[in-house]
Amino acid sequence: MAAMRILAAPDKFKHCCDARQAAAAIARGVRDGARQAEVLELPLSDGGEGTLDALAKAFPLRVKCRVQDALGREVDAELALDASRKAALVESAQACGLWRLQEHERNPLHTSTFGVGQLVARALDEGVSRVVIGLGGSATSDGGAGMAQALGVRFMGGKGELPRLTGDGLTRISAIDASGLDKRLRNVEVTALCDVNMGLIGPSGATRKYVIQKGGTTGAVDKLELGLALLAEMIKRVNPKADPQDEGSGAAGGLGFGIATLLGGKLQAGSRAVLELLGFEKLLESTSLVITGEGSYDEQTPDGKIVCEVARFCGRAGVPCVVLAGSVLPELEIAGVTAAFEISRFGARKQDALDSGTINLQRFARHVTRLFAARPRGRA
Amino acid sequence: MAAMRILAAPDKFKHCCDARQAAAAIARGVRDGARQAEVLELPLSDGGEGTLDALAKAFPLRVKCRVQDALGREVDAELALDASRKAALVESAQACGLWRLQEHERNPLHTSTFGVGQLVARALDEGVSRVVIGLGGSATSDGGAGMAQALGVRFMGGKGELPRLTGDGLTRISAIDASGLDKRLRNVEVTALCDVNMGLIGPSGATRKYVIQKGGTTGAVDKLELGLALLAEMIKRVNPKADPQDEGSGAAGGLGFGIATLLGGKLQAGSRAVLELLGFEKLLESTSLVITGEGSYDEQTPDGKIVCEVARFCGRAGVPCVVLAGSVLPELEIAGVTAAFEISRFGARKQDALDSGTINLQRFARHVTRLFAARPRGRA
Repeated sequence: MAAMRILAAPDKFKHCCDARQAAAAIARGVRDGARQAEVLELPLSDGGEGTLDALAKAFPLRVKCRVQDALGREVDAELALDASRKAALVESAQACGLWRLQEHERNPLHTSTFGVGQLVARALDEGVSRVVIGLGGSATSDGGAGMAQALGVRFMGGKGELPRLTGDGLTRISAIDASGLDKRLRNVEVTALCDVNMGLIGPSGATRKYVIQKGGTTGAVDKLELGLALLAEMIKRVNPKADPQDEGSGAAGGLGFGIATLLGGKLQAGSRAVLELLGFEKLLESTSLVITGEGSYDEQTPDGKIVCEVARFCGRAGVPCVVLAGSVLPELEIAGVTAAFEISRFGARKQDALDSGTINLQRFARHVTRLFAARPRGRA
Repeated sequence: MAAMRILAAPDKFKHCCDARQAAAAIARGVRDGARQAEVLELPLSDGGEGTLDALAKAFPLRVKCRVQDALGREVDAELALDASRKAALVESAQACGLWRLQEHERNPLHTSTFGVGQLVARALDEGVSRVVIGLGGSATSDGGAGMAQALGVRFMGGKGELPRLTGDGLTRISAIDASGLDKRLRNVEVTALCDVNMGLIGPSGATRKYVIQKGGTTGAVDKLELGLALLAEMIKRVNPKADPQDEGSGAAGGLGFGIATLLGGKLQAGSRAVLELLGFEKLLESTSLVITGEGSYDEQTPDGKIVCEVARFCGRAGVPCVVLAGSVLPELEIAGVTAAFEISRFGARKQDALDSGTINLQRFARHVTRLFAARPRGRA
């Protein structure tokens, strides 16, 4: 019998551990549970924070650079190149990520994606023919206007060119001059990995749903809806095909929209694209069991989360898939998921559950592996 | 390939459901998880409450009778006979069970095992050559004195024979006259199934540990320790081999001690004896997976609980064994247990967890079965 191969392929566990730590904890548990098992650690990401790590195999070369964070401060960031140096991976959260801001600094009216444009420009300096941009985890809601500025697009107001745009500056745009857009982009394929499939504005758009998470007030929601609607109108004048309802346009506070309409980029579902870039389907051919996981396995999971996509790939390949999560919605049934277990203990306080997250992950991975590896002796 | 056979063999889940209900819930989950699976429901008991049900296959014939409960009230009770009517099963909790008393009635100073003696007498009326007595779940702490009275043993005090003995009457015993003991017992083998392996008194005896659970105060503990020590001294005068430290003597408030010393009975570990009477080892030969469970899987489980014994049998037979429990002590590792899962939800209130116990059992049994039944296609 060939060796049992188990894939430890989790997303991050929010407020507990990143995907690399989660994969390592699962792998420890698997080895505890079955010494003979081979285990492969494959931390995942849906395009947001952690994408550079998740795609490190496909984009192994790191390039350091100085860019602006969401508030315009200079920070050290990284992008990555594939082995041939023909493709670059930009993680937008490296520049405008919410993780870079302290609680009291978070306000999507005052943040910009300018640094993402700087990362793209840096990638172009490498002479690549393809740029992949991971969206998600952003502190911004500027529709990608800041990014476009960094790449040469000019936004005009009543009194001339507007300086560094943020969420609350969008309502002042009266025209867009895209003639200065970095010429190098003409021969470069740009792809954005969207962590959500929502459009930009409206009742089911991303703005209404995520502004509060980014530190905005309900007043900010109204102002940003208005500013982004105006931005969309102005962009339509230079790109008539621009549609703020396109799937993924709302990702990273509208950065998806800006990439699609001003950079001519393609929007893809991040979780699916990440798995494809990782060669996940091929990996499954030699895999006996996949253990995936995330902080909360709930009604949002089927909405394009990476755990759902992992299950879909597993289902197609006929590979059993176990979900471990901090909390599990009991009724949830997702195609391809063989079993889902809640790793937080009954009676535990929330902080204790978070603190013991990786230990619990390890323990559950051990029990799951033992059960999966168990074969009754002497009978079928 | 032979059909997969899964054994649903849980103990009761205290304050939630009895063993029959738990087995039924697990069986539903197994069928949800794998349509092709055969599932056998085998509710278990360690000798206490539920023993008549657990051993219904070995003792299928029921005999109704009127006996005294722990407070001396007449109640309807049952005992059981094997198919040949040569062996009887007495569940002591049918007479002196804590479950028959309301919260405010519970007080081991005022309770008696008299009704157990009546059940044994009723079994003797059937002409059996063997009586098996399940201990456990008792409201008493009378050392079996009440039971012995019902079978003809006389307990003397300063002013003559003592009436119906209870826990607080033990200190008044000055002599024992066993000459009146039911003569039919001479040719009958008596076996007691002990739910705990502790002795009667002392720091590690059962009295100190269980009197509070039975509604006693700390004052009652002291009084009962004294009374039982005196009883043991008195019994030694008629049976020099009597030893209150013998394993199992402390079961059911010392009922084990009374059976061993006054009836000449043998004390056995209840959980092991129950599994033997059920032919559990034979059953395992055609079993792919055992799903067992109990309310709390904790440091008491290795102390002779039926779940631990199930795991031991499974380990010897090489059959995987999964434990489902309302709460699981994370560090606990018991030989033979393949995996243990806590079925109560993180964040649930205790009452909610109890109320949703059977639903959670069913759900976990479904996930466990799906995982166990999963075989990667096209690979080892």
